Amino acid sequence: MLRTHTCGELQISHVGQKVTLCGWVQKSRDLGGTTFIDVRDRYGLTQLVLHSDTDAALRDKSRSLGREFVIRVTGTVLERTSKNAKMATGDIEINVEELEILNESKIPPFMIEDDTDGGEELRAKYRYLDLRRTPVRNNLVLRHKMAQEVRRYLSDLDFIEVETPVLIKSTPEGARDFVVPSRMNPGEFYALPQSPQTFKQLLMVSGFDRYFQIVKCFRDEDLRADRQPEFTQIDCEMSFITQEDILNIFEGMTRHLFSKVKGVELTDFPRMYYADAMRLYGSDKPDIRFGMEFVEMNDIVKGKNFGVFDNAELVVAINAKGCANYTRKQLDELTEWLKRPQIGATGLIYARHNEDGTIKSSVDKFYDEAALAEWSKALNTEAGDLILILAGGIDKVRKQMNELRLEIGGRLGLRDKSKFAPLWVLDFPLLEWDEESARYHAMHHPFTSPKPEDIDMLDTNPGEVRANAYDLVINGTEIGGGSIRISDKKLQSLMFKHLGFSPEEAQKQFGFLLDAFEFGAPPHGGIAFGFDRLASIFAELDSIRDVIAFPKNNSGRDVMIDSPSTIAEAQMQELKIRTVL
Amino acid sequence: MLRTHTCGELQISHVGQKVTLCGWVQKSRDLGGTTFIDVRDRYGLTQLVLHSDTDAALRDKSRSLGREFVIRVTGTVLERTSKNAKMATGDIEINVEELEILNESKIPPFMIEDDTDGGEELRAKYRYLDLRRTPVRNNLVLRHKMAQEVRRYLSDLDFIEVETPVLIKSTPEGARDFVVPSRMNPGEFYALPQSPQTFKQLLMVSGFDRYFQIVKCFRDEDLRADRQPEFTQIDCEMSFITQEDILNIFEGMTRHLFSKVKGVELTDFPRMYYADAMRLYGSDKPDIRFGMEFVEMNDIVKGKNFGVFDNAELVVAINAKGCANYTRKQLDELTEWLKRPQIGATGLIYARHNEDGTIKSSVDKFYDEAALAEWSKALNTEAGDLILILAGGIDKVRKQMNELRLEIGGRLGLRDKSKFAPLWVLDFPLLEWDEESARYHAMHHPFTSPKPEDIDMLDTNPGEVRANAYDLVINGTEIGGGSIRISDKKLQSLMFKHLGFSPEEAQKQFGFLLDAFEFGAPPHGGIAFGFDRLASIFAELDSIRDVIAFPKNNSGRDVMIDSPSTIAEAQMQELKIRTVL
Repeated sequence: MLRTHTCGELQISHVGQKVTLCGWVQKSRDLGGTTFIDVRDRYGLTQLVLHSDTDAALRDKSRSLGREFVIRVTGTVLERTSKNAKMATGDIEINVEELEILNESKIPPFMIEDDTDGGEELRAKYRYLDLRRTPVRNNLVLRHKMAQEVRRYLSDLDFIEVETPVLIKSTPEGARDFVVPSRMNPGEFYALPQSPQTFKQLLMVSGFDRYFQIVKCFRDEDLRADRQPEFTQIDCEMSFITQEDILNIFEGMTRHLFSKVKGVELTDFPRMYYADAMRLYGSDKPDIRFGMEFVEMNDIVKGKNFGVFDNAELVVAINAKGCANYTRKQLDELTEWLKRPQIGATGLIYARHNEDGTIKSSVDKFYDEAALAEWSKALNTEAGDLILILAGGIDKVRKQMNELRLEIGGRLGLRDKSKFAPLWVLDFPLLEWDEESARYHAMHHPFTSPKPEDIDMLDTNPGEVRANAYDLVINGTEIGGGSIRISDKKLQSLMFKHLGFSPEEAQKQFGFLLDAFEFGAPPHGGIAFGFDRLASIFAELDSIRDVIAFPKNNSGRDVMIDSPSTIAEAQMQELKIRTVL
Repeated sequence: MLRTHTCGELQISHVGQKVTLCGWVQKSRDLGGTTFIDVRDRYGLTQLVLHSDTDAALRDKSRSLGREFVIRVTGTVLERTSKNAKMATGDIEINVEELEILNESKIPPFMIEDDTDGGEELRAKYRYLDLRRTPVRNNLVLRHKMAQEVRRYLSDLDFIEVETPVLIKSTPEGARDFVVPSRMNPGEFYALPQSPQTFKQLLMVSGFDRYFQIVKCFRDEDLRADRQPEFTQIDCEMSFITQEDILNIFEGMTRHLFSKVKGVELTDFPRMYYADAMRLYGSDKPDIRFGMEFVEMNDIVKGKNFGVFDNAELVVAINAKGCANYTRKQLDELTEWLKRPQIGATGLIYARHNEDGTIKSSVDKFYDEAALAEWSKALNTEAGDLILILAGGIDKVRKQMNELRLEIGGRLGLRDKSKFAPLWVLDFPLLEWDEESARYHAMHHPFTSPKPEDIDMLDTNPGEVRANAYDLVINGTEIGGGSIRISDKKLQSLMFKHLGFSPEEAQKQFGFLLDAFEFGAPPHGGIAFGFDRLASIFAELDSIRDVIAFPKNNSGRDVMIDSPSTIAEAQMQELKIRTVL
């Protein structure tokens, strides 16, 4: 090694030793004839010192150093006169005896410090400099530790990591595929996997018993902060198990991760049925760091000649604790916020539980004191609380109230990123209606098994059929989802039929799986975690971009390497494709 | 779990316990009214027994079981009367009390046994059944253990695993890229990485110090047994190091793997210069499980009026120990084998060192007894040995003799797959001449640094410039290669110039790296291992296909899922591409 120590390890016990360090110049300053230089590497910062009696040539060289120069320095470890308790190496400094400039640096386009002055675009273009910043690099160190602990936990439980192929086959189910033209098979394409779903099921048919993989997956969908065209899954599958086994093992994995990586000890994860999650939180991924459950008001509010409520399928309320002091202006702003097209509410009705015990609503014309007392009772309000009410179609109004609840929870400081509230959501619907294609789609994927007692409803009431499907939610973010799979060819064929596949199409697309089910498929199930999202929750960040070394922007571009880009005409000719713009 | 135990764990200590097992019916047989069934899972085999006094319905059900049926069975562990010492569970059997058929199986298209009767194509089509065979599954278990130990070794040395992107940019250097049309950026394409080379170098610029990744890479090249369009690398990079540090750390990793996974303790790896490897073995990846080094004969054989030798650039010989008994017919066959177009020799000259001490050559007309005695001395032959000689242009004849040496080594049983002979090959040439494009190409890649003392030769004698580049070879297979990289923008630009890039092209393709080198790039270097090849050596197999769960065939097809395949017209329209057949 070019160094004897890293910049993070020298202590008082090293005093008197001759050492060599390598790293980047963080800053340098002259103080009354003495030059101090902070040199940085991944492991920390160490202070170098050149006193006024140091060799003149060496002092000149030290003065030529700019920020981010790469240097190699040899010197003796000294005890500092004024120690810095905030710095791991703050007890010592290095008396510089030799100094070599390994590489120079231009002035970086933004400050390489914990808080930078660089904007998002500039930092994306110079991502290699942004990654030099300690908090950004630490996110990736955290991610590395998480991956290590996932592998350790699962390997100790006899899970085998198997690599499944990246060049697979395009299928019409699910999101849009990225495709790869095949030169050796002109006119044909591979697809990049949206998940290794069918392969992990085949591994179960092969008797692998317990499989996992930390694996890149791909979806060609429009992007936003928590979506990237390539993302990473912790993908798992098990045979000869029930849903309960999967919940226990992966709750265990999640607890193990929190304990080992964050030092956070979680208790047993609560469980909630999908139907209850929708009713109480208007979401299949409730943030249960705080309560503020929905209260359905239909029985209480209807029949008082207030058309908005009388004509609504659902009237639903939350108690915004302590928000009675919201001004009329604030409430108007909140109403406007709810009316934005992204949320689409038609209006907001509210009632203040005043400090004097009276309750005043925005619809006092229709609801007298006794009626409002009923509201207060239903929502368990106290003086100082604010009741917020939305009305409309069930699905819409639940979605709107979910947004409102999260907004109010945020305002009340109830969504602390350093608190973690995991939740299992169980019994998802098997199918969901898609307006655009006017048919049912698989809510998870076509391989999810229906609850045996609901199978008869597939023909009569498909929307009501529940699946053996579960999600793991943390702080209102879905971080994992899975199901007990179908392992019977007949049932799988029935599912494809209900999803609108002809028998021929089903065989063409998924024949290999249907065939495999005829040769002794074991009962099996699994789960997949969004590793980027999980890492962003561990890093207490909003966006998954900051836990990805080289993320793409919202147009799917890597602005650093300037990709995607045009390719040579000769490449297209070899691939027998042409672009049609 | 649906079971209380696996099929591999029950011992004499479990006798009397009531257990439940799940697995596949391996075989079943009736012996004098008693039915024996072997049930199999990943962990082993257990014998089930139904005696003549068992409930009739249960016996009927047991007789209905075919091979590969999936069953769940409950019963009591009994001590066997006739134990099977070859079987881990051979001391016990299960007295069946309950039997549930979890899934039926058609008759598999080939035998699910250690030795199967299935041909390659059939096994590829039903890969999920081939993977059910214990030796095939064991290859993947071995691979899993290797990956675990790689990660453990490197993480313990402060290496951080960082995921680099799969959707990157196509570059003209190296092999042919797979490309992915971008829907969001019509007319533009991503490329799949041939390696994460530039990204890992950028991580060094970012100060990550020690990086690794076990990562899928892609090359759209024609295929053969040890090449797949997608393959896996153990990719590593370090900063502030010398070549010696890299050799030591990754020799350590390789030794660690052999020790932990195979129980093989390797001694220090020998090292050889590229030039010596070519001279002594005619290959940059010598198989040194055996000697049989080349002996260059020019000084000895020339000037005796034998035109074949006199006109040859190089006359080179090996001593085929103990092969003097080769018949004329065998030698003619060997000559024909050498003349095949794949090898392209023009002829083979030989001399037998007979048991009576005389030496007889195929060119006795030109070489008398004294001359042949010189040959014998040069090749250190004893009675019974056979001298084999090839003559021609240096490069060609070395390649031919390499093939001949490996062939003879194989025939002599010197290439035992359970013996392991690692070797570092050092000081590779920086550039190699490419006839087709009539220019120099980078032998490793354009980021490899030349030896400082050779830089001046870049202009005068580029073919002679040595690189700070090294390969790790095991048993004649290159399993790893790397180099100390260029970290200086000027030198990198010079390299691109010598590779025929205009400054504009270099900036367009690799501007991000050249720019990065201006902001304080540390000295760095690394190595990448072919994980599939390494696993195949550990598994003592010839082909990498058997250590890949779902490999592709020589046409790049996955015959199980029938991929690649055509895609829908609508998909192509969205991507703004068209096929041109």
